[in-house]
Amino acid sequence: MVREMPEASIGVLVAGHGRFAGGLVEAVELILGPQEGLRAVDFTAGDTATELKDGIDAALADLAGFESVAVFCDLRGGSPFNVSRAAASSRDDVDIYYGANLPMLIDFVSKRNLGVAPRLLRSAAVDEGRSNLDCFDASAVEAHEDDWA
Amino acid sequence: MVREMPEASIGVLVAGHGRFAGGLVEAVELILGPQEGLRAVDFTAGDTATELKDGIDAALADLAGFESVAVFCDLRGGSPFNVSRAAASSRDDVDIYYGANLPMLIDFVSKRNLGVAPRLLRSAAVDEGRSNLDCFDASAVEAHEDDWA
Repeated sequence: MVREMPEASIGVLVAGHGRFAGGLVEAVELILGPQEGLRAVDFTAGDTATELKDGIDAALADLAGFESVAVFCDLRGGSPFNVSRAAASSRDDVDIYYGANLPMLIDFVSKRNLGVAPRLLRSAAVDEGRSNLDCFDASAVEAHEDDWA
Repeated sequence: MVREMPEASIGVLVAGHGRFAGGLVEAVELILGPQEGLRAVDFTAGDTATELKDGIDAALADLAGFESVAVFCDLRGGSPFNVSRAAASSRDDVDIYYGANLPMLIDFVSKRNLGVAPRLLRSAAVDEGRSNLDCFDASAVEAHEDDWA
């Protein structure tokens, strides 16, 4: 009997100031390959708050086919976070992360693609993001380093 | 007697896959305003390893006027980190951070601009990056939220 791979049931939206969101999504896809259900909304210098809200609403509508949505913001506070939070306030199927970095998002998207449950993804992504954020200590280098690309 | 503001004596380079670096620098400057000595090197799909190395070497040369340099990479391992590490291997004035996020970089650049010593910046930036990376818990919201922009 052939077991099908689980569907990716979590949509992912990245939102941030400048072109942080688009840049981060591009980095994820360069490493993991093109992804379904991964959107970026940038809040650049010329954008109004209304344009940001429209962009986030449109991205969430695009992701409506997923069972839940995870929003990764650049930081807590600030328009991208606040607008995402407001959009999610009436829903119980949206998690909002902040301080997003690439290790966190790679971990989340990879495990989402394997069908790992949202409640397990949550703490794993935060742990992964934090433990892979550091100042490199050349004196503590292990014998062989992992290499992404 | 007028006391002059300390000079920003630390150059900052952000390096990453895709347009992560350019996007993150744009976010920092949108929030803090234009910065001296803040460079981004992107490693995009069409770039060769040689182009990446040339870009990082050129950025480090641009920052030669600073007393030291802090390189913020998207993740540990991968070409942006590995090339930065190689470029820094013969120097004792370059720190390399990985897992860069916006709270970490805002903290670092803000304190750099105030003339805080590099050794103090190092642990503060890592602490700031980690403690501001989390999943938002709506049930634990404080009475008033800070707001960046």
